[in-house]
Amino acid sequence: MNPLDELALILGDGLVTDRDIMEGYRRDQALWAPGGWPIAVARPASTAQVQALAQWATRHRTALVPRGAGTGVAGGATATDGCVVVSFERMNRILAIDEAAMLAVVQPGVLNGELKAAAHERGLWYPPDPSSYAVSTLGGNVATNAGGLCCVKYGVTSDYVLGLEAVLADGTVLRTGGRSRKDVAGYDLTRLLVGSEGTLALITEITLRLRRRPPRATTLVATFTSLEASGRAVAAIVRSVDASMLEIMDRTAIRAVERFRPLGLDTEAAAMLIAQSDAPGSAELSCMQAACEAAGGTVIATTEDESEGQMMLTARRLALTAVEQLGTVLVDDVAVPLPQLPEMLRRVDAIAAATQTTIATVAHAGDGNLHPLVVFDGKDAAAEARAVAAFNEVMAQALGLGGTITGEHGVGTLKRGLLTRQLGAASLALHRRIKHAFDPGGILNPGKVIDS
Amino acid sequence: MNPLDELALILGDGLVTDRDIMEGYRRDQALWAPGGWPIAVARPASTAQVQALAQWATRHRTALVPRGAGTGVAGGATATDGCVVVSFERMNRILAIDEAAMLAVVQPGVLNGELKAAAHERGLWYPPDPSSYAVSTLGGNVATNAGGLCCVKYGVTSDYVLGLEAVLADGTVLRTGGRSRKDVAGYDLTRLLVGSEGTLALITEITLRLRRRPPRATTLVATFTSLEASGRAVAAIVRSVDASMLEIMDRTAIRAVERFRPLGLDTEAAAMLIAQSDAPGSAELSCMQAACEAAGGTVIATTEDESEGQMMLTARRLALTAVEQLGTVLVDDVAVPLPQLPEMLRRVDAIAAATQTTIATVAHAGDGNLHPLVVFDGKDAAAEARAVAAFNEVMAQALGLGGTITGEHGVGTLKRGLLTRQLGAASLALHRRIKHAFDPGGILNPGKVIDS
Repeated sequence: MNPLDELALILGDGLVTDRDIMEGYRRDQALWAPGGWPIAVARPASTAQVQALAQWATRHRTALVPRGAGTGVAGGATATDGCVVVSFERMNRILAIDEAAMLAVVQPGVLNGELKAAAHERGLWYPPDPSSYAVSTLGGNVATNAGGLCCVKYGVTSDYVLGLEAVLADGTVLRTGGRSRKDVAGYDLTRLLVGSEGTLALITEITLRLRRRPPRATTLVATFTSLEASGRAVAAIVRSVDASMLEIMDRTAIRAVERFRPLGLDTEAAAMLIAQSDAPGSAELSCMQAACEAAGGTVIATTEDESEGQMMLTARRLALTAVEQLGTVLVDDVAVPLPQLPEMLRRVDAIAAATQTTIATVAHAGDGNLHPLVVFDGKDAAAEARAVAAFNEVMAQALGLGGTITGEHGVGTLKRGLLTRQLGAASLALHRRIKHAFDPGGILNPGKVIDS
Repeated sequence: MNPLDELALILGDGLVTDRDIMEGYRRDQALWAPGGWPIAVARPASTAQVQALAQWATRHRTALVPRGAGTGVAGGATATDGCVVVSFERMNRILAIDEAAMLAVVQPGVLNGELKAAAHERGLWYPPDPSSYAVSTLGGNVATNAGGLCCVKYGVTSDYVLGLEAVLADGTVLRTGGRSRKDVAGYDLTRLLVGSEGTLALITEITLRLRRRPPRATTLVATFTSLEASGRAVAAIVRSVDASMLEIMDRTAIRAVERFRPLGLDTEAAAMLIAQSDAPGSAELSCMQAACEAAGGTVIATTEDESEGQMMLTARRLALTAVEQLGTVLVDDVAVPLPQLPEMLRRVDAIAAATQTTIATVAHAGDGNLHPLVVFDGKDAAAEARAVAAFNEVMAQALGLGGTITGEHGVGTLKRGLLTRQLGAASLALHRRIKHAFDPGGILNPGKVIDS
């Protein structure tokens, strides 16, 4: 039997070979990562189908490229020629929300926002909030160990994953972790899979810890005439309170927003800081205000009102969209130790100057995690080359400051080259041996994260 | 050259072969795990010496058994015949405390309590607090992913490990993670090593995240006439506040303490709950009080005074020592999903009755993590056999309730048999392949966690 006919027997109408439909499955949001042509898109509806699919792929030595909603920005879900894209869109059910145990069990295709909403109805909260949360899947969030704005106080995706069901390359079903909040039985395979970008196993079920709904947040916005001053404010805030959000936008980002939607922002400020606290009372807010002022900043507004606070976040939320009005955008993602934040911001400015590119930066400042947004004219090949150079130089400079080439977006295809530099030979060799322990035939998302 | 002479060249006076001294390195606190005889104890003073030691061990196919302070209770540091015990007592320096980055870099032999003290001096805090914290090493804490009383709010050791330096079996130096708070570059090797109990690599340096010092805690003690009622109170507290401590002692534990040191405890209570909140103000304390009363408990005392609060923890802190007055103690360690806590407590009572043993239970109730303390007459072989049966049955019952055989102590040698049952064949096979990826010759802590 023809391999694709075999696959049709496994997947039924979950098999797609129509090129027009497949076109939508060739890339994620890393638009400049070249997308290959899959021979098919598989849309399994059950763990059993994923198992059969893995066995099929192993038999036919065909690569499987797992895919959530395709919102990744590092090329982790980019199709390779001759692969089968595995879309989890049909495995999209919330299987359980256990209120007493404060956990949820979901299939990988459930949207982050869907779980947030379902938890909210029960007085519970799923914190991780990548900016794509309304449209990205939990499977993708787990595969990339997605972060967001809440991380500064509430941690990243891996802090919420209690257990996984996953299908190995040979079709074996693996279960890791469980429903206990503490568990040290054996190696931490759960966290080894989280962030492995589909290279080790196909995640088919996720058990996620939930929290109580957080109290209402108070909000503060301040501006600074220098990057150093904003860095001092961030440092002081981190040392004195548990901010539930602590973001910075640089001048280029502020100006892009003000041009896109006039909000009356101070377009001469070097940086704008947006912070929230969800501690009871207003003591943390006062403390953050004092920290900004002591650092030489100007506190523009504070509020204890939640909806007013939401308004004050508008500029931050609009930043990417606003910057995208300026041209094609490469979204970079690096993190540095906290004290290096102002220096990293300065270096990003220097890179923009040196490469004659526009770079707007938004940062999860409280985590030292920056997103330099490199803007270029998508129709100008020379401009694109300069932008790519800037994108790579941002990572190199982050490494130089003791940081990482990716804080929350992942390595995918775009950052593979610099990963080698960050990890070094010993770690990379070990990565390959671990990859081999999971996927000896190299069928799972080959060419992503590491060359296997 | 004789292998031991070779080793002497590597280690100088860091090599011990005197049997009287080696006697102290044969076991950890899992006293009933039979300790073999090492051919030597190595006390390396540097990463370079650890490297040379690993190369030596690989050449001579000699097992290395890493050891912190020997405070483990699962037999993870038990010597095997013919091995070399690797004690990190000379690698005991705090290399850096970076106040601005809020992190510490330590050698593995630093005591948890030493780091806590050094951090405290700088207004910082290293939260993980296994009850051994004053005498256990950070290397051991990392190797076992140690927990403690703070976990309910502040997480376990792995939540604080930003990066590691470790020596592989072949002497390769591996660096994982770094100084960034967020980092998704490559597989999470840091967390794969945390909790691997010395079976994957020899940890030579640890980068640990620090927090701000927590605010003063308020404290509450309540008693309950039934385990169910105490379980309801725990559930209500977890749903309504972020308790910074949430412990339970059962009647047997209460009575043991009262016999050891009369504190006026209610020896008829089925359970005593000890809770703290370090949120500002007294709102959480009031909330916890209301939750206890609504569950049918009697609130014995509350205080917003820190030293008075410390007094109120006396019973909890004395529990293990008090129970040890009753006989030889096997310290068990299981965790269950939160709603199963009262049922697990009931089953422990049933196991005590069925095996004619005394079992006192203390529990990190807010995490669903229980320590049933099985007491027996150490001179009575039949009693010991019943105690071991009880110890194993506790784990079996935890598994039956969807829990884990170990919440924070590790698998070591004592829990290996049941690990197979918990993980299943697929996971176990993968554990072996991962072990092989790190340590193909099987020289690192063989026979611990898994049979390799």
